[in-house]
Amino acid sequence: MTEKKKKISIIVFSGDYDKAFAAFTIASGAAALNYEVNLFFTFFGLDIIKKKRGRHFLGRGFRARFFNFLLGGRNNLPLSRLNFAGLSPLLLGNLAKKRRVAGVDELLDASIKLGVNFYACETAGVLLALQKDDFIPEVKKVIGIGSFLELQEGGTTLFI
Amino acid sequence: MTEKKKKISIIVFSGDYDKAFAAFTIASGAAALNYEVNLFFTFFGLDIIKKKRGRHFLGRGFRARFFNFLLGGRNNLPLSRLNFAGLSPLLLGNLAKKRRVAGVDELLDASIKLGVNFYACETAGVLLALQKDDFIPEVKKVIGIGSFLELQEGGTTLFI
Amino acid sequence: MTEKKKKISIIVFSGDYDKAFAAFTIASGAAALNYEVNLFFTFFGLDIIKKKRGRHFLGRGFRARFFNFLLGGRNNLPLSRLNFAGLSPLLLGNLAKKRRVAGVDELLDASIKLGVNFYACETAGVLLALQKDDFIPEVKKVIGIGSFLELQEGGTTLFI
Repeated sequence: MTEKKKKISIIVFSGDYDKAFAAFTIASGAAALNYEVNLFFTFFGLDIIKKKRGRHFLGRGFRARFFNFLLGGRNNLPLSRLNFAGLSPLLLGNLAKKRRVAGVDELLDASIKLGVNFYACETAGVLLALQKDDFIPEVKKVIGIGSFLELQEGGTTLFI
Repeated sequence: MTEKKKKISIIVFSGDYDKAFAAFTIASGAAALNYEVNLFFTFFGLDIIKKKRGRHFLGRGFRARFFNFLLGGRNNLPLSRLNFAGLSPLLLGNLAKKRRVAGVDELLDASIKLGVNFYACETAGVLLALQKDDFIPEVKKVIGIGSFLELQEGGTTLFI
Repeated sequence: MTEKKKKISIIVFSGDYDKAFAAFTIASGAAALNYEVNLFFTFFGLDIIKKKRGRHFLGRGFRARFFNFLLGGRNNLPLSRLNFAGLSPLLLGNLAKKRRVAGVDELLDASIKLGVNFYACETAGVLLALQKDDFIPEVKKVIGIGSFLELQEGGTTLFI
């Protein structure tokens, strides 16, 4: 007689500050309501869960190292619009603090505490030469798209 | 013996002309087919449902007022690509008119007439210092992510 | 006693290299796992399935022809971020080759071979003055949003 747990899964493709904000707001909100929540970070989204939060040359190979440097890590997530060379995310973070709204860091922490499942995409990891050890320890596993498809089956799934 | 009504819910995160066009095309199309349709406007998407359609300083606080001014309202939605300083949305609107395809304004009107439900996101509203009264009257309610999750349960859900 | 086939449908709205990469990775991955897969190309996404892969004036009418030229075809898909005037997609394609990861062309081919269904959006086709004959022959049909809504019912649906 146990009710099936509701589920939401998000493919976090974007590495924009505002979209990370949206993803973690949905994730932590759903987890607080006792949903099973799966976050599958891929492509630019991998930038959000790198252990090194600043601008670093990571991985092997010149191209991958350069790309990782350009991405810039969680401290340098841009806005998807009105970015103004990185000024706007600061403005927005500041605005969030002033209005007592949680920013990306706080929402990430909340998601972790509420039991959200973090996964990194295998293919994107190969492309950017990133391995499990390059990500925050909360990343459970590096998985392929097939495993993610299985995880999300029967729930709500978003591409952000 | 009544069949459950089909349902589609859209998180309208983007404030781009082309993506608003997509969101309202799906919304009005689905509503015409007797779907329950829920639109949850958040972040840049709030720009689409502001009562004041032009470029205005809205809300309290310098940062929020400046951000609202930059966003520019429904009359100034940019294209997500090939925007050319706002020329392209005009070009596209013009193209739509010439080909007798409905533009964003007509699709918004159609969505309203077909009974699509409009909701504004509470958190984004706090960030941009916008209140229910700043939105078009068709916005039913300002709600949090938890309420939206409940609304979309059991249907198709998109993030645009 | 036959189990219902799992299904995933993707609205391919974006014409970015990285997002096309994501769409075809999901599509081919799901098809390999015996999912029914429906791709509905619309707006910028139509650029991916044009028969002419280069930069061409297509369609009737100056505006539509110019827009198609600007879009540039499958050979000129930009990155959604860090595009650097088209240099980055080359860099990324190159990176994919070096790491033996399939690029957009290979993933498109794989999707076709695995039986993924390709559809083009009617409204976007009208806007850009593109007809069935302008698309690769694997595009089954040009359909409206209503037909797509029916197709996706009961499966996972993403907007990319």
